[in-house]
Amino acid sequence: MSGNSFGTIFRITTFGESHGAALGVVIDGVPAGIKIDRDFIKQEMARRRPGQSALTTARQEEDEVEILSGVLEDVSTGTPLAMMIRNTSQRSKDYSDLENIFRPGHADFGFYSKYGIRDVRGGGRSSGRETCARVAAGAVAKMMLAAYGIKICAYAAEIAGVKAETFDQSEIEKNPARSPDPVAAAAMIAAVADARAAQDSVGGVVKCFIDNVPAGWGEPVFDKLDARLAQAMISLGGVKGIEFGDGFAAAKARGSQNNDFMLPGGEFASNHAGGIAGGLSTGARIEFSLAVKPTPSISQEQMTVDKAGEPRRITITGRHDPCIVPRIIPVVEAMAAIVLADFALMQRCARIGNN
Amino acid sequence: MSGNSFGTIFRITTFGESHGAALGVVIDGVPAGIKIDRDFIKQEMARRRPGQSALTTARQEEDEVEILSGVLEDVSTGTPLAMMIRNTSQRSKDYSDLENIFRPGHADFGFYSKYGIRDVRGGGRSSGRETCARVAAGAVAKMMLAAYGIKICAYAAEIAGVKAETFDQSEIEKNPARSPDPVAAAAMIAAVADARAAQDSVGGVVKCFIDNVPAGWGEPVFDKLDARLAQAMISLGGVKGIEFGDGFAAAKARGSQNNDFMLPGGEFASNHAGGIAGGLSTGARIEFSLAVKPTPSISQEQMTVDKAGEPRRITITGRHDPCIVPRIIPVVEAMAAIVLADFALMQRCARIGNN
Amino acid sequence: MSGNSFGTIFRITTFGESHGAALGVVIDGVPAGIKIDRDFIKQEMARRRPGQSALTTARQEEDEVEILSGVLEDVSTGTPLAMMIRNTSQRSKDYSDLENIFRPGHADFGFYSKYGIRDVRGGGRSSGRETCARVAAGAVAKMMLAAYGIKICAYAAEIAGVKAETFDQSEIEKNPARSPDPVAAAAMIAAVADARAAQDSVGGVVKCFIDNVPAGWGEPVFDKLDARLAQAMISLGGVKGIEFGDGFAAAKARGSQNNDFMLPGGEFASNHAGGIAGGLSTGARIEFSLAVKPTPSISQEQMTVDKAGEPRRITITGRHDPCIVPRIIPVVEAMAAIVLADFALMQRCARIGNN
Amino acid sequence: MSGNSFGTIFRITTFGESHGAALGVVIDGVPAGIKIDRDFIKQEMARRRPGQSALTTARQEEDEVEILSGVLEDVSTGTPLAMMIRNTSQRSKDYSDLENIFRPGHADFGFYSKYGIRDVRGGGRSSGRETCARVAAGAVAKMMLAAYGIKICAYAAEIAGVKAETFDQSEIEKNPARSPDPVAAAAMIAAVADARAAQDSVGGVVKCFIDNVPAGWGEPVFDKLDARLAQAMISLGGVKGIEFGDGFAAAKARGSQNNDFMLPGGEFASNHAGGIAGGLSTGARIEFSLAVKPTPSISQEQMTVDKAGEPRRITITGRHDPCIVPRIIPVVEAMAAIVLADFALMQRCARIGNN
Repeated sequence: MSGNSFGTIFRITTFGESHGAALGVVIDGVPAGIKIDRDFIKQEMARRRPGQSALTTARQEEDEVEILSGVLEDVSTGTPLAMMIRNTSQRSKDYSDLENIFRPGHADFGFYSKYGIRDVRGGGRSSGRETCARVAAGAVAKMMLAAYGIKICAYAAEIAGVKAETFDQSEIEKNPARSPDPVAAAAMIAAVADARAAQDSVGGVVKCFIDNVPAGWGEPVFDKLDARLAQAMISLGGVKGIEFGDGFAAAKARGSQNNDFMLPGGEFASNHAGGIAGGLSTGARIEFSLAVKPTPSISQEQMTVDKAGEPRRITITGRHDPCIVPRIIPVVEAMAAIVLADFALMQRCARIGNN
Repeated sequence: MSGNSFGTIFRITTFGESHGAALGVVIDGVPAGIKIDRDFIKQEMARRRPGQSALTTARQEEDEVEILSGVLEDVSTGTPLAMMIRNTSQRSKDYSDLENIFRPGHADFGFYSKYGIRDVRGGGRSSGRETCARVAAGAVAKMMLAAYGIKICAYAAEIAGVKAETFDQSEIEKNPARSPDPVAAAAMIAAVADARAAQDSVGGVVKCFIDNVPAGWGEPVFDKLDARLAQAMISLGGVKGIEFGDGFAAAKARGSQNNDFMLPGGEFASNHAGGIAGGLSTGARIEFSLAVKPTPSISQEQMTVDKAGEPRRITITGRHDPCIVPRIIPVVEAMAAIVLADFALMQRCARIGNN
Repeated sequence: MSGNSFGTIFRITTFGESHGAALGVVIDGVPAGIKIDRDFIKQEMARRRPGQSALTTARQEEDEVEILSGVLEDVSTGTPLAMMIRNTSQRSKDYSDLENIFRPGHADFGFYSKYGIRDVRGGGRSSGRETCARVAAGAVAKMMLAAYGIKICAYAAEIAGVKAETFDQSEIEKNPARSPDPVAAAAMIAAVADARAAQDSVGGVVKCFIDNVPAGWGEPVFDKLDARLAQAMISLGGVKGIEFGDGFAAAKARGSQNNDFMLPGGEFASNHAGGIAGGLSTGARIEFSLAVKPTPSISQEQMTVDKAGEPRRITITGRHDPCIVPRIIPVVEAMAAIVLADFALMQRCARIGNN
Repeated sequence: MSGNSFGTIFRITTFGESHGAALGVVIDGVPAGIKIDRDFIKQEMARRRPGQSALTTARQEEDEVEILSGVLEDVSTGTPLAMMIRNTSQRSKDYSDLENIFRPGHADFGFYSKYGIRDVRGGGRSSGRETCARVAAGAVAKMMLAAYGIKICAYAAEIAGVKAETFDQSEIEKNPARSPDPVAAAAMIAAVADARAAQDSVGGVVKCFIDNVPAGWGEPVFDKLDARLAQAMISLGGVKGIEFGDGFAAAKARGSQNNDFMLPGGEFASNHAGGIAGGLSTGARIEFSLAVKPTPSISQEQMTVDKAGEPRRITITGRHDPCIVPRIIPVVEAMAAIVLADFALMQRCARIGNN
């Protein structure tokens, strides 16, 4: 276990580098009997794909998912479900200029320090391209969770300081910002264009909510539902913070304000907790927010050093997202689904009466 | 693995309920040859202990740690290091009034939903008392990390909306707020007293920094250093958010502002990233902040329901912290140490040349 | 995970040395709602305890199990079930003569090579005393498996070359050899007495069978039912081999003889496979045999070396079992129960329809 | 973790069915800096491939390994090393006759009982074809172990009751039986031919030895070196028993005969233990034997039942190995290498001085 696996029973193991032969994922622990809808996987992949709009990179990636095992006549069989995405669009670019130099804001120096060797082509394993394996796995998790009626939705709550002020879920996938507020979306898009024109990049805030998770999911004390969601989300490149429910605002509230009173019928009078108390789902809507940093790859000249520790100046060329918020949204949903699929199975083991 | 273990090689497994016979921890994977300083463990436990000041509960808990195994003549032997803390001060209080009723803001409803059975005495496994096992394990992790020169410090950055404006590390353990700003500390203490007088509670923000972690620690892609720290911290009861470096502020910055330029000598011109890029340590100071919610146990009357779903009113009696920020601080340090001890060992496996 | 945990969901973590403060086990993943019968735990511990007969060591160990957590009013709560056994009878013997010398047939040299430090008192962690934690955990597993109707029985099939020729299950616990054949038992006892008189020791073969395991338990491909049973059994000190069903005899058979034909009603015409095919239970009786080596601790003088590599002669004094077969039998049952308890829970996750 | 992963740090996850799109393996935890020799992988795959001789099936499988990730310019990078083998030779055979019927001696009934769904084409996941992923991973493990000077050798010690009486390592790969005794090899080959002519199959015994493992490898108490080797080997389809060193013969010996005395210089006067004492390597040659059952797929008519529980007669057609001993030999070596590669890394974590 060197970090490329995630989950206890519904367990994903991903592989692949930005410019290697292929990326992929093996999901062990997929229950038998799930209807596998290949079109749905394709749709989810398309949501993550670059080149969708001016907000994202113009790179074209096909991201075609091939199912290698675990599915028979479109039904999961209980054996490992492996999926592979070929890398097809990597150009035969010359990366030799990056070989000895560390890009600011990237994992370059960390990887070199750790392994003594580094795949400089497109960031190698530390590229955001790694997340396509997560989205493929998340699509399977979503299909499993559909049997529980669970629905997951993530969206851009803020980009470049522009906040969504209204919420209309049906708007989210209609604009390139993935904002539930079409007016704010326009402002967000303009702000990204400004940054790009200035050879710069911007960040934002992604919000995610999950409905219909029964009460009691999560495993005390280290694998609490929020703890595992936090690991899952912070493991995404560029996510620098997470808060559940009121989050940092709760730090300023009093207990009498922050406690969510329970009402007859299993409802709550409020949901400051974001649907999780003591690490277990309460049955209320699960809600969390993520801080997404501005893309570190910018085309203006930056200072850095090379392997020898000598000062260098670097200008990052190529096609990069001026803002990764829109493209990280399907990945956030995918990771949420993967966390929940695992807890759905763990939940079956909580009581002796279940056998 | 039902959630009570944490770590891959340096791996802790904790047990115990608030009012059971004992709490404890087994640490598997402690390298042989570490000098085990029992006084240091005692000191760390004392920092977490209740009854230290007016900010915390008046309950007296001895929290004496007995080492059951893994240590011979004050040196770790490589076998599992087990520690136990007897529960001595639990009163023979009558909890029957809580048996059918769910306390707002607590895990009561979640536990009942999950297991169909619940230890109502003092919150059982979901009590903050569970963290004494973490502190004991963290003390061992700190002793191990001492061999690497690693130092961890957490403190109260904000309580009840009152922020520390200055930073003097030597002040932290001198005031009951554990604030590095003695002036702010006085205001924090007053604010807690106000809340207590109003039968209410307050929250705050804990900051933690870690020095001397070499570059390259952490395991891509799911066990990134920040991802595991996030899991560790969010697994603490009452922590509702975490941000690394600039965190949510980074979401408003541009890439050119947020990128940390590397300087000759391995230094960085800034540390917006909080010492972690791409999930690996950069060699710079690791920094994160935690949102701590106000204690849910308050003595004013609250609405809730009972097992039958009938509306009920609840008045929580007993001794409870009006603010858990000061007492969570040593637990935050402990969890940080446990995460790093594990990565220290994982790091040894990164290259073939290490054998 | 440094080797002291076992299992995926029903997961035990043991600790403790022969002459340390205590031994114990934390079981994570015990489903809530199991009736915990303390008398049954006591009985199981009594079966493993030394000093039961002339075949075993005369040492007296109380082996009283204290439940530290996870049980409320004699029912499991779903939280970690921790149990501790104090070491009470260790004498203040002088072990300094053993400190620099490696006992033949023991783990002494291995431990020293691995850790550079070694608890010489009674063998430390490598003592057979470690198994009392397994028996305590096994008792809990058996209580869980009782809900499935599963029954486990182990016995002495051979001691010192004397084979049991008849099988009467009710005889097993009546004779100190734990032989199902009372006539063979007498011969076994005599053979052990001979060996003891000659300052020597003997080994034997333990057989174990398990009834009422439903078909389909086990997890392909590495956690096959037989693979995990093999790990569990070979992890017992002194067990040098395992075979399932016909085992090594199957290596000489033809396929037409060795295949077990299925009959209407889920029965099999034979059970050469020992109830496991392709790593999954078939529904037939599970059967395996274990080779138990003669106790390495013998009182006659033996050659060895010391830490400096110098030749030494060693005479092991103290109270040692001349044959561990009778005492390993309850441990074999315990480990079988632990393996099955885990697979019982895994089985709940095999199909989507189970939710 | 549903059984398709193995190992703690050097951890393999395999996938694929006999007649699916592809088989493969992801190895997480491969240290960076290992020279990856593609020709060596090819050689190892060729050793496992069917169609090598009259002893094995006439099926032709190309088994070409494609490295998908984790290798850059023929050196491991520390990221997951994924390898894939396309299934190319599966015929468009009609398997509908097998769909409702359980083959004797196979996992068919177990899989159906477990998952309620079963890939009948060539045995699906329970096919021996699954082992090609193990061999690919084992080749990488062997390359890593080469840095330690570790050498692994497995061979046919017995086929169809014919035992190898002499040992010449250089003979092993020269005859289709993989026997170290060329005379016995001829008799083995004849015995297999006899069985085949009788529409039957035979089994045998595989022996394996490993040289140059330093003393102290293995992790007490559940991940002992022999315990993990046992899990690894018994997880191979058709292996029904394992013994270390003298194994079942040790059960008949006395302690004075069975103990291996240590000699100056780290040598032992004997090696009854097979190089493992107390679960740790002793530094002596590691030795174990495996019971391999006769292939269950035989072409003579057999009795069985169908899904409805009705009696049926089955005649298995197609190309099957009359004896799998020769082809299992490279798989045994691969699994031994995988176990040792993991322990090599764990060993780095045993002492604090190693950092």
